[in-house]
Amino acid sequence: MSPLAENSGPDIIAAVIGLGSMGLGMAQSMKRAGLDVVGYDITPAAVDRFVADGGRGAATPAAAAKDADIVVSVVVNGAQTEAVLFGPQGVANAMKPGAVFISSATMDPAVARDLAQRTEALGLHYLDAPISGGAAKAARGELTIMASGSRQAFDTARPGLDAMAAKVYELGDEAGKGAAFKMINQLLAGVHIAAACEAITFAAKQGLDLDKVYEVITASAGNSWMFENRVPHVLAGDYTPLSSIEIFVKDLGIVQDMARSERYPVPLAAAALQMYLAASGAGMGRDDDSSLARLYAKLSGAELPSSTKEPQSL
Amino acid sequence: MSPLAENSGPDIIAAVIGLGSMGLGMAQSMKRAGLDVVGYDITPAAVDRFVADGGRGAATPAAAAKDADIVVSVVVNGAQTEAVLFGPQGVANAMKPGAVFISSATMDPAVARDLAQRTEALGLHYLDAPISGGAAKAARGELTIMASGSRQAFDTARPGLDAMAAKVYELGDEAGKGAAFKMINQLLAGVHIAAACEAITFAAKQGLDLDKVYEVITASAGNSWMFENRVPHVLAGDYTPLSSIEIFVKDLGIVQDMARSERYPVPLAAAALQMYLAASGAGMGRDDDSSLARLYAKLSGAELPSSTKEPQSL
Repeated sequence: MSPLAENSGPDIIAAVIGLGSMGLGMAQSMKRAGLDVVGYDITPAAVDRFVADGGRGAATPAAAAKDADIVVSVVVNGAQTEAVLFGPQGVANAMKPGAVFISSATMDPAVARDLAQRTEALGLHYLDAPISGGAAKAARGELTIMASGSRQAFDTARPGLDAMAAKVYELGDEAGKGAAFKMINQLLAGVHIAAACEAITFAAKQGLDLDKVYEVITASAGNSWMFENRVPHVLAGDYTPLSSIEIFVKDLGIVQDMARSERYPVPLAAAALQMYLAASGAGMGRDDDSSLARLYAKLSGAELPSSTKEPQSL
Repeated sequence: MSPLAENSGPDIIAAVIGLGSMGLGMAQSMKRAGLDVVGYDITPAAVDRFVADGGRGAATPAAAAKDADIVVSVVVNGAQTEAVLFGPQGVANAMKPGAVFISSATMDPAVARDLAQRTEALGLHYLDAPISGGAAKAARGELTIMASGSRQAFDTARPGLDAMAAKVYELGDEAGKGAAFKMINQLLAGVHIAAACEAITFAAKQGLDLDKVYEVITASAGNSWMFENRVPHVLAGDYTPLSSIEIFVKDLGIVQDMARSERYPVPLAAAALQMYLAASGAGMGRDDDSSLARLYAKLSGAELPSSTKEPQSL
């Protein structure tokens, strides 16, 4: 792609609302694929960073969205997504007819359905498209997207999806399915992190060789993606947040709210949520989610490897 | 190996106590490797099956063990292992000096340490060697063994270990370490099965396409070895026991007892244990452990795929 391509009038304009570690990478991936990308963030410095990197900035969500074919919302939850759409200077009344709103926040499927309905009532398309993969994959355009929405929503979103994702699951023609799949994944991920921390700290309490525990478990039936990914943080004593305790306070909270409303019991997710709440209450909310291991250690006197880095909040 | 080798006086004699689906396969694997194998089981028909297959049978544990270099105990728990060693016609007083007792049952590490001490006091060696891998791997001599014990115990056991296992982890020179590693694995495995059943049935409750859920989750961060292995039973509606609910009633019970005694909290394992107990109480104790999904379905009205086979206990 010639460096001039962006200035020579590309056909597709994309707006990205939310230029955090995920949104910035997604904006850059779309720019790299030749889309004309306008970014907005509530923090002006985040917009400046995108502009310094060659992107276009906007002063409000509405200004970013007004000429866009594709608006990608990369905020934290359903409430923020609603504000991006319908709040003061929100995008919904600024978007042109037939444009698509891609919602990537993790939220209750009922909220996704409601937002989709209100967005579609304005003649816009809505793609319910939670993401998974972390900041590095966002920057490389290699996210996994769990998406549902109308055929027109998918078709209009396609150039953006192709630029941002290595894999797009098409999970149905109605908003809410993507959100529901994401919540099933978050239920499992949140429980598995808690189980990994419960187990590795129990091994420490018994004086086992933790490196050997990692070697044996990752080759055994007790393994999980999260055990394999998070336990190395515990072994290194490094709780620098890659994904924080607060993410699972939020996501398992959504799981619990959904389950309560559907009269479905989730004893495993409920037990895990209590541990994330306890870790947050103990001051570790912004630390890596593997900090649950430090919580188990505090509760039991187990000794975990200590970091060679500066101490975290505990 | 010539078929005559067994009759021409092989150097090493092994006794296997407990010829269930695991013990029979382990006995056959050692026989295939050229050891002279004598089998005993509390059920005479199990001994007959081994004899019909070309093995040697014995009428008591003591009779099986009296000339053996290696005695492999393949029973259910610590109490049965103690009975094999020290009960009426137990092997401990029949074994020759310098022979090794290989204990493969899953048990509390404290029990393993006690049995080892009492066995070693008689001039015998003790290898704490829990197994993992299932009946098919037992039959192929491809188990994973998590072993600890003295150097002499390992050396004497080696021909048997090599015949039975694809991988032997050497986890320390004292009995109890092998048991402790196995319990860490069982904590994780038991929690992950419960989480898998909680999640897949929650997906069913929401009307998601369960085959698609399996596809998405096994490619995502919510995956676990157990989700990947057990959820297909739920998708097929087939709860024929490969590993039963009662196994985790037992193993998470041991985890809970260990944790209580060490003043270590295990909220995830405790929540999972309650679900196994509920499934057992509801009549599914001898069904496959993926029957937890049927329990969640009963509790919530979710509809899971039904089997094309005969109905199980529910």
